[in-house]
Amino acid sequence: MGSSFGDLFKVTTFGESHGGGVGVIVEGCPPRLEIDVSQIQLDLDRRRPGQSKITTPRKETDQVEILSGLLNNQSLGTPICMLIRNRDQRPSDYGDMKDVFRPSHADGTYQLKYGIKALSGGGRASARETIGRVAAGAIAKQLLRKKNQKTEILAWVKRIHTIDSDINLDQVSQEDIEANIVRCPDSLQANAMIERIEKISKEGDSCGGVIECIVRNPPPGLGMPVFDKLEADLAKAVMSLPASKGFEIGSGFQGTLLKGSEHNDSFIRSEKSGRLRTATNNSGGVQGGITNGETIVLRVAFKPTATIGKKQKTVDSSGNETTLAAKGRHDPCVLPRAVPMVEAMVALVLADHLLRNQGQCGIW
Amino acid sequence: MGSSFGDLFKVTTFGESHGGGVGVIVEGCPPRLEIDVSQIQLDLDRRRPGQSKITTPRKETDQVEILSGLLNNQSLGTPICMLIRNRDQRPSDYGDMKDVFRPSHADGTYQLKYGIKALSGGGRASARETIGRVAAGAIAKQLLRKKNQKTEILAWVKRIHTIDSDINLDQVSQEDIEANIVRCPDSLQANAMIERIEKISKEGDSCGGVIECIVRNPPPGLGMPVFDKLEADLAKAVMSLPASKGFEIGSGFQGTLLKGSEHNDSFIRSEKSGRLRTATNNSGGVQGGITNGETIVLRVAFKPTATIGKKQKTVDSSGNETTLAAKGRHDPCVLPRAVPMVEAMVALVLADHLLRNQGQCGIW
Amino acid sequence: MGSSFGDLFKVTTFGESHGGGVGVIVEGCPPRLEIDVSQIQLDLDRRRPGQSKITTPRKETDQVEILSGLLNNQSLGTPICMLIRNRDQRPSDYGDMKDVFRPSHADGTYQLKYGIKALSGGGRASARETIGRVAAGAIAKQLLRKKNQKTEILAWVKRIHTIDSDINLDQVSQEDIEANIVRCPDSLQANAMIERIEKISKEGDSCGGVIECIVRNPPPGLGMPVFDKLEADLAKAVMSLPASKGFEIGSGFQGTLLKGSEHNDSFIRSEKSGRLRTATNNSGGVQGGITNGETIVLRVAFKPTATIGKKQKTVDSSGNETTLAAKGRHDPCVLPRAVPMVEAMVALVLADHLLRNQGQCGIW
Amino acid sequence: MGSSFGDLFKVTTFGESHGGGVGVIVEGCPPRLEIDVSQIQLDLDRRRPGQSKITTPRKETDQVEILSGLLNNQSLGTPICMLIRNRDQRPSDYGDMKDVFRPSHADGTYQLKYGIKALSGGGRASARETIGRVAAGAIAKQLLRKKNQKTEILAWVKRIHTIDSDINLDQVSQEDIEANIVRCPDSLQANAMIERIEKISKEGDSCGGVIECIVRNPPPGLGMPVFDKLEADLAKAVMSLPASKGFEIGSGFQGTLLKGSEHNDSFIRSEKSGRLRTATNNSGGVQGGITNGETIVLRVAFKPTATIGKKQKTVDSSGNETTLAAKGRHDPCVLPRAVPMVEAMVALVLADHLLRNQGQCGIW
Repeated sequence: MGSSFGDLFKVTTFGESHGGGVGVIVEGCPPRLEIDVSQIQLDLDRRRPGQSKITTPRKETDQVEILSGLLNNQSLGTPICMLIRNRDQRPSDYGDMKDVFRPSHADGTYQLKYGIKALSGGGRASARETIGRVAAGAIAKQLLRKKNQKTEILAWVKRIHTIDSDINLDQVSQEDIEANIVRCPDSLQANAMIERIEKISKEGDSCGGVIECIVRNPPPGLGMPVFDKLEADLAKAVMSLPASKGFEIGSGFQGTLLKGSEHNDSFIRSEKSGRLRTATNNSGGVQGGITNGETIVLRVAFKPTATIGKKQKTVDSSGNETTLAAKGRHDPCVLPRAVPMVEAMVALVLADHLLRNQGQCGIW
Repeated sequence: MGSSFGDLFKVTTFGESHGGGVGVIVEGCPPRLEIDVSQIQLDLDRRRPGQSKITTPRKETDQVEILSGLLNNQSLGTPICMLIRNRDQRPSDYGDMKDVFRPSHADGTYQLKYGIKALSGGGRASARETIGRVAAGAIAKQLLRKKNQKTEILAWVKRIHTIDSDINLDQVSQEDIEANIVRCPDSLQANAMIERIEKISKEGDSCGGVIECIVRNPPPGLGMPVFDKLEADLAKAVMSLPASKGFEIGSGFQGTLLKGSEHNDSFIRSEKSGRLRTATNNSGGVQGGITNGETIVLRVAFKPTATIGKKQKTVDSSGNETTLAAKGRHDPCVLPRAVPMVEAMVALVLADHLLRNQGQCGIW
Repeated sequence: MGSSFGDLFKVTTFGESHGGGVGVIVEGCPPRLEIDVSQIQLDLDRRRPGQSKITTPRKETDQVEILSGLLNNQSLGTPICMLIRNRDQRPSDYGDMKDVFRPSHADGTYQLKYGIKALSGGGRASARETIGRVAAGAIAKQLLRKKNQKTEILAWVKRIHTIDSDINLDQVSQEDIEANIVRCPDSLQANAMIERIEKISKEGDSCGGVIECIVRNPPPGLGMPVFDKLEADLAKAVMSLPASKGFEIGSGFQGTLLKGSEHNDSFIRSEKSGRLRTATNNSGGVQGGITNGETIVLRVAFKPTATIGKKQKTVDSSGNETTLAAKGRHDPCVLPRAVPMVEAMVALVLADHLLRNQGQCGIW
Repeated sequence: MGSSFGDLFKVTTFGESHGGGVGVIVEGCPPRLEIDVSQIQLDLDRRRPGQSKITTPRKETDQVEILSGLLNNQSLGTPICMLIRNRDQRPSDYGDMKDVFRPSHADGTYQLKYGIKALSGGGRASARETIGRVAAGAIAKQLLRKKNQKTEILAWVKRIHTIDSDINLDQVSQEDIEANIVRCPDSLQANAMIERIEKISKEGDSCGGVIECIVRNPPPGLGMPVFDKLEADLAKAVMSLPASKGFEIGSGFQGTLLKGSEHNDSFIRSEKSGRLRTATNNSGGVQGGITNGETIVLRVAFKPTATIGKKQKTVDSSGNETTLAAKGRHDPCVLPRAVPMVEAMVALVLADHLLRNQGQCGIW
């Protein structure tokens, strides 16, 4: 019911920004997987607030505690529960917003649906909820790498506001991405992006952009016909992240400007790999809903952060018109921190489909 | 496992283009819903091949037979099974393709996954599979209208290849859409689109484009925090349609070029409706994953049809390079027929979330 | 929502006794399974009414039509839809019951829940619904045998009314079971059972009893800790059959009269099989929710048929007290026909857990 | 995948006896439910070890911490995560059993399935896992009572080993049950039961028995036709409890000795309640899989505890024959502590079906 994702490799997140903590249960993880807990913490650190001058200054150390499912860093095949305690809560930051609905935030719809206003920090709509996803995704990544060492999931900031970048999909590396605080591997444009975010932040405003993600050497044969096509599950996965407004795979929206003869990916025989390959990759690694082994390529649009310092028109909970200038410590741009979130969601989809494919097609 | 969709209002489709027929089971439909079977047939007719000069000339009457779940046109609360027999099969059309993989089609990945080549017409990857979705969607639409007569789902062709259109979201009607065979309510551009499709078709080529869909007066409060956000489920729903490559909601990719102060939808009090409304609708009717009652707006990118008459490079099932010039009766452009498919998928998502919301939040 | 069963090997049944037909979709069947359709028909024939003098004389041929998912008798990995048309319907048989609730039947609760009275024959509560289960179970059996030729599911009538039998679990065979119309492999007691059923039938009354089922050489390692223990899923499976009132596995209720030292199954090393074995089998082949490779043993209690010819007190749909003497062609005892139903449900549970285990634990 | 239960009111438990703690996430709880945390603790206290001389002397305080989903003791509609830390662990108790498989315990099958031996205390097979169920069940009970104050779930020990009791289903109360440490409301027999357990315990042996459970004034209309019949879901629920070997509803196995005319529950009109009632209740409150409003009555068989002090034959993990005399602090009889577990599982089934019924049938 909303907080679970996946069929065989299944995660359930819990926790509000204001309670005892947030976390996740990972069900269905195969037994005897060596789990490097430092890799989980590393991804949490890439996600956490306060990591640089262009993120919210909230200090959350987000230390993971593994409550179950592991023994001597080996998975038992039983549910892995990970808990991250809440620490740097300042409900006072949200005092102004107690009785007003933040425009384009979840406050209003939570009130509408549940009859309870989402609390300071947004309750389950808070980006803090994504901690559980990132922790679970870090395990999914390790599962995928155990299956095939060459499988590699990389995401980066492709565009911030109007500043686009040019990335070579074949050569980009994790090091390139982490080389700067905006996580754009085009270092020249990265600097321009950082300046833009700082400028907009000083205006009390916010901005959005596009994140690109690839999976190199994905397991072929993942995804299913009809509803659980891989691109459908990927779309759901990333469109469930806060602030996402669009998704595309391979050629995406631009590909619709081509004719079939231009868009089709011709099959070729690769002497090197021995397997069927395609000359181009407009399909983005997925055909008929199933991975063909080529690099998976997808992009996600993230809107500008809703909570801003600038004064905005809104109404209070009695329906009276008023204005709001938010005082909280909010990200002027979510994209640098959303990079590990996108990676995590993509890893969860692949891990689940890996097990599902194994279940149906690995039987003989 | 791939062929089911939805939690409470749940559909399961079955059938290949080459078997006895295709169809769907609808589980969870509330009892005592008056079902107008002619409305189901009407949507199937809007989907069927051979309906106009710009669709495939295959003649499939696609007559629906309701096998269960209804009595005197009233739902019993039990599974509704609908069967549509296969009629106009011409496996000979596919003779040439028996041993070659069609570029950008599902042939290759089906072989990879199942060890069996998708048959003539593409097996489950065939657009014929969508019959079950459209039939189920027609019931979902009637459920939504029974709940609120004003709820209206409209989809149309927004762009074909490079020809865009200008649609007034407040005024467009079903009549405008059905006024021409390309299903674009901008009649001037519709003519240009039809000419473009005919021209490309004569070249033995194909084209894609963008479908736009709105839901007027959607039930407010639908969707859930975290993974089952309404936009996430909508994204999965339409990205599971054959040939779809991208999804966006509200401001979508373009919205990422705005600043937060420009993008946020200010809350206003509507005297007319008594409920909280927003001055703009960049959110596309969904905030924090939950409908706010404003019009839902989404767009879907469809790539050019993969199967074309033009000669293409490919390989055969033995891995030898060859060429293919497809002879089948294929759509030069799927969009006119995809309009009812998009409507159906959107209706299924809303119907399911209507029941899910009723289950959790309607208890008192 | 009620009509689906299983996670990976998933079945969804549809159909009322009064509609166009009944049937089932089997999702998740592994590809490239050779399916012997005559085995499906054979189990349907063992289930069908009118097969002997102790079953209802309704003549239903129950011919299966496979609509999808198979090609040249090989599974495609896609949904297998099987349809069995309704033929020998005599709604007039149910005329008397149009406005009265049959005691201990589903009429009253259907009316209560759905606001619609279950129709002639009981709608979805009709034993006719089990056709879909038996057809799906026949495929599950073939999947299990393909995995291990020695896996064998056998069910039989253990007790009818007060007439019990003595069955040697190690030696009983399918031939012994099918040797008589009551399906009790103890031939002496079988005759007494048939006489008892005939006698009770003449009185316009009905009787119940106990069915026993074993699985020889089940795949070891099936079942999961906690909620999806194999015995839990088996219990749900058979308790979902019409008229079942009790379930037990291994030593069952009688085992509670033993002390731990008497009840525990000592582990021994089997030279023959090389695997760990147990000296006794009070566990019934399942320990900690997981099969240990020993024979699975379970029993199901079936109550006497609710619809009887004898006059009974009841009320009509206006709540007025009245009497009812049913005229329909009803089974005086459901057990002989329930034997293939129990087998089918057990096969479905094992096939599903086989794929689930493969998905999680077969990955390396 | 094994650790989740329920569709709308869904629980997922986690935790081994040897990790940081055990607990549960409750998803789908309706918003604005007042939750009395002391009632949760009360049920945990009824379940915990060391509560009396006839349970294991392990001292576990089992203090619940609610991490999320509540604010001011009111449910938010979001996942409720409850954590109970592990305290009184003594792995040394299990030293002897490190390399031997306990007969009739999960050690062997866990090793078989996961390639890892279940640890000291049995890992997920430990009764400690049921803490999460009991905590979640305590919330389910409060949901049911909020819906109807008169709904009351009562379970008790019906039989211990060979000592049976006689309970008046109409009059028995929670006070009667909690009046003695064996939780049998027949005070005379309760004393005999306690003596029996003490005697068997001194012998280094263990015993089992039968728990009975009723639900007074259950919501009518709960349960679904076909697979999710209420009795099927109840069977699965209680058969997933450690040590359960059998389930029956209403007349159960004994009812199969009656004829239909004796077994059927005649409908009568109740002047008092205005609704349709039955003269007898062999159905146990469920007809056609759906509650009719009469008292639900079920019974569960629990085998004698597998871990005993008496010396038993077994094999070690290398397959060599050996003997084992367990030293741990084990319950000589699980039934007194299993009473709140059965209540909890029954409450979870009803809460889930309450929401499911509301979702499908509460829409108009």
